[in-house]
Amino acid sequence: MTARQPGAVVLLSGGMDSATALAIASATAGPVHCLTMMYGQRHARELRSARQLSQFFHAASHEVVRLPIGSLLRSSLTDRTRPLPRARAGRGRADIPSTYVPARNTILLSVALGYAESLGADSIYIGANAIDYSGYPDCRPEYFRSFEHLARLATKAGVERRWNVRVEAPLLRLSKAEIVRLGDRLGVPWELTWSCYAGGRVPCGRCDSCALRAKGFAEAGTVDPLLRRPHMRSRRSRPT
Amino acid sequence: MTARQPGAVVLLSGGMDSATALAIASATAGPVHCLTMMYGQRHARELRSARQLSQFFHAASHEVVRLPIGSLLRSSLTDRTRPLPRARAGRGRADIPSTYVPARNTILLSVALGYAESLGADSIYIGANAIDYSGYPDCRPEYFRSFEHLARLATKAGVERRWNVRVEAPLLRLSKAEIVRLGDRLGVPWELTWSCYAGGRVPCGRCDSCALRAKGFAEAGTVDPLLRRPHMRSRRSRPT
Repeated sequence: MTARQPGAVVLLSGGMDSATALAIASATAGPVHCLTMMYGQRHARELRSARQLSQFFHAASHEVVRLPIGSLLRSSLTDRTRPLPRARAGRGRADIPSTYVPARNTILLSVALGYAESLGADSIYIGANAIDYSGYPDCRPEYFRSFEHLARLATKAGVERRWNVRVEAPLLRLSKAEIVRLGDRLGVPWELTWSCYAGGRVPCGRCDSCALRAKGFAEAGTVDPLLRRPHMRSRRSRPT
Repeated sequence: MTARQPGAVVLLSGGMDSATALAIASATAGPVHCLTMMYGQRHARELRSARQLSQFFHAASHEVVRLPIGSLLRSSLTDRTRPLPRARAGRGRADIPSTYVPARNTILLSVALGYAESLGADSIYIGANAIDYSGYPDCRPEYFRSFEHLARLATKAGVERRWNVRVEAPLLRLSKAEIVRLGDRLGVPWELTWSCYAGGRVPCGRCDSCALRAKGFAEAGTVDPLLRRPHMRSRRSRPT
């Protein structure tokens, strides 16, 4: 990250990680343009969180795009006939979980790339994380560097003006507990974020994502406000 | 291209180039899965052509996906308030035309990548062409090689099984006239293809794309059946 940039596109799902990435971009990257893509996930609960988060951080804009590609991509996240994985304490680093969505980050980053070039933004923020989700191939530093290389070749701005868009994945090497501590410092309203794969009214507490979130708050030594006050809306305002 | 592969995803717009790419894939690549993406172009006339072409070539499947991303991407192809460029004989090679859509091929290839990984296909065919459209940065050989490199890093199959998906752009170095001659040999039903940017009932004859098409047929020494018989449907069947 460098200070004061012409603008950033932030991939905002509504989860803890993208909320923290948005907080970082808001603090450092100039005008922030949020981009939420719905690609056939099991539920739209995160969309509400994304909308509230973009408002909370006073984003310059927030685009929501529905990509009806879920039927093309085989994953337990996009296929309702496949069970979601339960939390497994002993999952090895080499395993790629069934929640892997083929080419997910490449699809999201590609649309963000076209949007960033259209806006003249020079960075794309993504809340990808390589520690807790080390199994996803498209959450690795070498993947992001490869995407930046592709972006220079792929775009008019890259060819004509040597536009060098950066993919910022500031959470890549942080544990969930470190993300909680960083988000606390940046004033992330955790009660507006959503992590659960199941997408009910309250988090299921059993899926991989709920387990990771719980572990993060426990290790950070704080309480998840989403669990403490499940039916309350945040009245906090953004720190200035 | 190598002979007999497990299967291919063909990006099929309905134009001459993607129709010829489909003809090549059908002849060499095993089961062919067509993928048509509508991303906010000015018209849907090409969609009818794409449907007819996938049937003509007996594709194993044909998926049509509407990507509502036109408003995110600045281009005269996706923005109805910007004029379409007229044909210009003297356009230099270094100019990138206003019909450039930011990150277009990266977005199309990314979705095709996820679909190919889900299917177990090992190649993606795209009718990109670097001669007549040398201005588009995402129609260059180095761009496609960079995408292949990214694909190996981005996917579960790439990491676990060294899946090495190939981006086949067999028309990359052909002139429009050479494409016409190649398509003639492969039995491409030109009358089912559509090139015009304007998307009326008959081709406008004035846009860049109409001009290129006309030049191709003229230099190949044949007549465009779409102009000869504008209101007739093809009764040809696919050559065996």
